[in-house]
Amino acid sequence: MEKRDLIYEGKAKRLFSTDDANLVIAEFKDDLTAFNGAKKDNESGKGALNNKISTELFKMLAKNGVESHFVEMLDDTHMLCKKVDIILIEVIVRNIATGSLSKNLGIPDGKVLPFTLVEFDYKNDALGDPKLNDQHCLILELVKNEAELDQLRAMAREVNSILRPYFHDKGLNLVDFKLEFGRDKDGKIILADEISPDNCRFWDLETGEKMDKDRFRQGLGGLKVAYEEVLNRILG
Amino acid sequence: MEKRDLIYEGKAKRLFSTDDANLVIAEFKDDLTAFNGAKKDNESGKGALNNKISTELFKMLAKNGVESHFVEMLDDTHMLCKKVDIILIEVIVRNIATGSLSKNLGIPDGKVLPFTLVEFDYKNDALGDPKLNDQHCLILELVKNEAELDQLRAMAREVNSILRPYFHDKGLNLVDFKLEFGRDKDGKIILADEISPDNCRFWDLETGEKMDKDRFRQGLGGLKVAYEEVLNRILG
Ligand SMILES: Nc1ncnc2c1ncn2[C@@H]1O[C@H](COP(=O)(O)OP(=O)(O)OP(=O)(O)O)[C@@H](O)[C@H]1O
Ligand SMILES: Nc1ncnc2c1ncn2[C@@H]1O[C@H](COP(=O)(O)OP(=O)(O)OP(=O)(O)O)[C@@H](O)[C@H]1O
Ligand SMILES: [Mg+2]
Ligand SMILES: [Mg+2]
Repeated sequence: MEKRDLIYEGKAKRLFSTDDANLVIAEFKDDLTAFNGAKKDNESGKGALNNKISTELFKMLAKNGVESHFVEMLDDTHMLCKKVDIILIEVIVRNIATGSLSKNLGIPDGKVLPFTLVEFDYKNDALGDPKLNDQHCLILELVKNEAELDQLRAMAREVNSILRPYFHDKGLNLVDFKLEFGRDKDGKIILADEISPDNCRFWDLETGEKMDKDRFRQGLGGLKVAYEEVLNRILG
Repeated sequence: MEKRDLIYEGKAKRLFSTDDANLVIAEFKDDLTAFNGAKKDNESGKGALNNKISTELFKMLAKNGVESHFVEMLDDTHMLCKKVDIILIEVIVRNIATGSLSKNLGIPDGKVLPFTLVEFDYKNDALGDPKLNDQHCLILELVKNEAELDQLRAMAREVNSILRPYFHDKGLNLVDFKLEFGRDKDGKIILADEISPDNCRFWDLETGEKMDKDRFRQGLGGLKVAYEEVLNRILG
């Protein structure tokens, strides 16, 4: 499968059409952005790491019954995917309070939540990805009905219930992550986008060290080493 | 019933204890604040107008089966109320998009919503009253369980279903409003605080003129005349 036209260039990936109208190729870029694009950098090899990590996770999730857009890894930075219509909701799953949750609601950083929290953010960079409640999602017509919101929550919780023990076995604490979902050609809602240290938070279970994009957000350095370590733990 | 000690001084009211541990006196102040206290002013007679408007509305709601903290109006600026433990959720009911909803979610100002929207904001000035979803309310332990959130939503919708046609008959479009609820001495959740042009938006049905605190927020002038007009329409 070959790249045809550039359909979309985002902050972390380029999407290309293919000869098959139902398939797209995602190219993982080395660009790093944070704070809705206000902070920018570039880390050579980051795209390839995210492509490999996402590939392994989508494969593992498929074995556990979670359907995604993943078809196959084409090379270091390219992934073949089913084309979907992205649902404009960023589905955020949180096991531990940190980042914007702690800041916005005054919940202490590092507090283990009494239950896994699922949040919906409006996937809209111009508006700064504001928080939504269920009724906002319906008024904005981001989904067809309340049942679809329940389905998104259930799928997100299912992904968490698979990933959390998986990473725990590899010495990583899965703190939180962001998922995107889309509708495939038959209208079925499936998991899309990527699952990587760009949109998950991993804390080393032994040392507490941050193994994700917070290294970039907080200027800690050593981002690529951390992403490589995440990939190695997944593979090893 | 006489005022004893000042229990709490807020931005718009002072609360006093009484000889009865289950009763408090609310004194309606002339102070005006907006944007979480960043804009401030004082309008002589505003407190008395809000006291009278709230009194009429609580009485009318009681006749329609909505229980509130209202006991009686004591004088121009004082209301006797059942003491409650305030639930730290500002319950916002919106029939028409305007203000922060339009700004935050890009919904055109003045758009009639497809259904009445109920939002929960964390009643926390230090955090800037952030938006909450149901799970946030539970994690912050603002209520005991999901059923109480459904109860708050149902009570808020019930208040709207009474107030909206009531004001329509008086030539006012009830655009949105904020309610507070609390637990009385028996733990029962009842309506509390105030219902006034300080926390409702009214648009004149004929002229579209704003008859509420937006006159202050937007520096339109004529605030007291507008509040007087709202009271006169209620009484007339
Ligand atoms: N299978 C898919 N089919 C169609 N679009 C997809 C698919 N998977 C992901 N996308 C979309 O492609 C884009 C990926 O680019 P990237 O991750 O760089 O975007 P972003 O900058 O993070 O977000 P934005 O969407 O705001 O540009 C995203 O908009 C994502 O929703
Ligand atoms: N019946 C009641 N019993 C106890 N407290 C009440 C009752 N009714 C209202 N309150 C509380 O009394 C205070 C009223 O003061 P006011 O409206 O000036 O507060 P505010 O400045 O708007 O808000 P804040 O609560 O942030 O100070 C509010 O905190 C309100 O929640
Ligand atoms: Mg992205
Ligand atoms: Mg108040």
